Amino acid sequence: MLVELQERAYPIRIGPGLLADGASYKLLRSRLVRVVTDQNVAALYLERVLEALGLTPNEVLVLPAGETQKTWANAERVLDWLLAARLPRDGVLVALGGGVIGDLAGFCAAVYQRGIDFVQIPTTLLAQVDSSVGGKTGVNHARGKNMIGAFHQPQAVIADTDTLRSLPARELAAGLAEVIKCGLLGDAPLFARLERDLDRLLALDAETLAETIERCCALKARIVAADERESLHGGAGPRALLNLGHTFGHAVETYTRYETWLHGEAVGLGLCMAADLSARLRWIAEEDAARVVALVQRAGLPVRPPQGITPDHFRGLMAQDKKVAGGRVRLVLLRAIGEAVVTADFDPDALEQTLAHYCAA
Amino acid sequence: MLVELQERAYPIRIGPGLLADGASYKLLRSRLVRVVTDQNVAALYLERVLEALGLTPNEVLVLPAGETQKTWANAERVLDWLLAARLPRDGVLVALGGGVIGDLAGFCAAVYQRGIDFVQIPTTLLAQVDSSVGGKTGVNHARGKNMIGAFHQPQAVIADTDTLRSLPARELAAGLAEVIKCGLLGDAPLFARLERDLDRLLALDAETLAETIERCCALKARIVAADERESLHGGAGPRALLNLGHTFGHAVETYTRYETWLHGEAVGLGLCMAADLSARLRWIAEEDAARVVALVQRAGLPVRPPQGITPDHFRGLMAQDKKVAGGRVRLVLLRAIGEAVVTADFDPDALEQTLAHYCAA
Repeated sequence: MLVELQERAYPIRIGPGLLADGASYKLLRSRLVRVVTDQNVAALYLERVLEALGLTPNEVLVLPAGETQKTWANAERVLDWLLAARLPRDGVLVALGGGVIGDLAGFCAAVYQRGIDFVQIPTTLLAQVDSSVGGKTGVNHARGKNMIGAFHQPQAVIADTDTLRSLPARELAAGLAEVIKCGLLGDAPLFARLERDLDRLLALDAETLAETIERCCALKARIVAADERESLHGGAGPRALLNLGHTFGHAVETYTRYETWLHGEAVGLGLCMAADLSARLRWIAEEDAARVVALVQRAGLPVRPPQGITPDHFRGLMAQDKKVAGGRVRLVLLRAIGEAVVTADFDPDALEQTLAHYCAA
Repeated sequence: MLVELQERAYPIRIGPGLLADGASYKLLRSRLVRVVTDQNVAALYLERVLEALGLTPNEVLVLPAGETQKTWANAERVLDWLLAARLPRDGVLVALGGGVIGDLAGFCAAVYQRGIDFVQIPTTLLAQVDSSVGGKTGVNHARGKNMIGAFHQPQAVIADTDTLRSLPARELAAGLAEVIKCGLLGDAPLFARLERDLDRLLALDAETLAETIERCCALKARIVAADERESLHGGAGPRALLNLGHTFGHAVETYTRYETWLHGEAVGLGLCMAADLSARLRWIAEEDAARVVALVQRAGLPVRPPQGITPDHFRGLMAQDKKVAGGRVRLVLLRAIGEAVVTADFDPDALEQTLAHYCAA
């Protein structure tokens, strides 16, 4: 499938066995290529990719794994390495790994010599359905997630579903949070299918996986094509819908210093909180909010926030989120399952109730 | 005048007294604004700008002055400061200063929360005719100038020609190098006018200054509108013409670690070397190359490279320049005064002769 962005359009290939398939890498032929990956992914898949690409281990930078690595300092490390290697402006950077590697390497590709081509090879469900598509790149900051970054579209995304077989159950669940989010925000039939087929996804049924990933990518591609830089309506346009669950989630991730919660886990909780708030506002039925919590829970995701977090923490951290406009917190909330809106126009008491409810011991 | 870039079009105002004129800042009304400047400029102009903008000194970050400050570390410092101030995504960053401040603050605006608005208030001739127009932002690296950066267009450029009265003669001369470059690469009548009017420019005649700056901005705006990201023809399109003199110049700046040569001084020498090479290739007459050297020299710019630099140094540093494509150094060379071409297709022996000639004691 294709992400339609005029001269920045790019293909997404989804399916088993793509990593070792030379045809996946057509774009890279006769180009100078460097690969950034992490230790976990390198141990599992690097050999296969290097062989298919005809590269040596010298042409790869292997970083430690984990969200704590998505830093300004590591961006400098990657850039130093690219400069030492003298990768030219028409070279290509390949991001082999999950969302952390994709966001970090993508940001480096965005700013190396003011922007070079890059290719995403996402190896987690979260990266395959979400972070590798749409061009958002960046690093975290002590004051918030993704506070520094760039919009930089990849030249191609290669999503080999076989890589999900090595994914720890916890990371698979984290990816499912973004899948559930897609259904919730804009694809009610997908949400219903997830309620029906969740066990097959958890069992990594190949066909269900490929169909689900494709459906999520298609939704995301439509939204990104409509609002590439999240710039429509002062940042409250179509693309902002993809932040469903994220403002609550980012607060949790920042509170726990990116050390204990996975991004998808925080988003899963954020979906529950957004649904809870939407129900308190009487925008959706309580039963629908309960369906959200039930599906998030069945996916193996936490539905309660971390120990010790208070409404004050949430308020402070949410106020620092990028989604603040003119001093009011803007949230993505639900009008129905399959229909989300971006708004700062809601009763703040309802938000207080949601925070109090979720922060109660 | 307007830089025509569709939805990214922006105005350039040029003239005396603009800094203190509230009308200059229309765009900034009712926006949250932060200002980045340097110590030299702050001492001269900050009060005036803060008053016109209605800001307090707390809303300004004052950095040390100089090209050595254009670093990844200082970008982090600016970003930390913006995050601590919680500048929202719809805030505006103002760059008040020369090219270093404009490039550094512009880069920070490009990556802060994936891009916020910024306004350039260039206070040097070089920044007014060149670096503030066109959207190139970035920082230097030990391995080369501007190796890390982004394309990010300002919302407006405000060029107050009165600020040039405080400019040291050496910096005025450095700016004239870019003015001469404009004439050389695409405006033969401007080059002829410079030969005639150079003394008036050096005497800061107000009318001559404004006309000359406007003419340079107009040329640059036309080129940028045709090739915003220097992406046409694999980086050898119209925008690359603006690099006339820069590949030689960057080598000199890197060799001297940005410590002794001003950018414009290096470009002035680079213009002489590009003209010398063009004459050796018999693309221009020797007399025309001599006119270039004469004008550069009259402007008060060096026409010999720094002590100790060798052809080997030049070759190594030029190979690292961004303008390398497929292993061959691409240069901007002259076909006539007022007509430049971007090419890797020239006799390498002629380049050797130019390097030997310029590196001879």
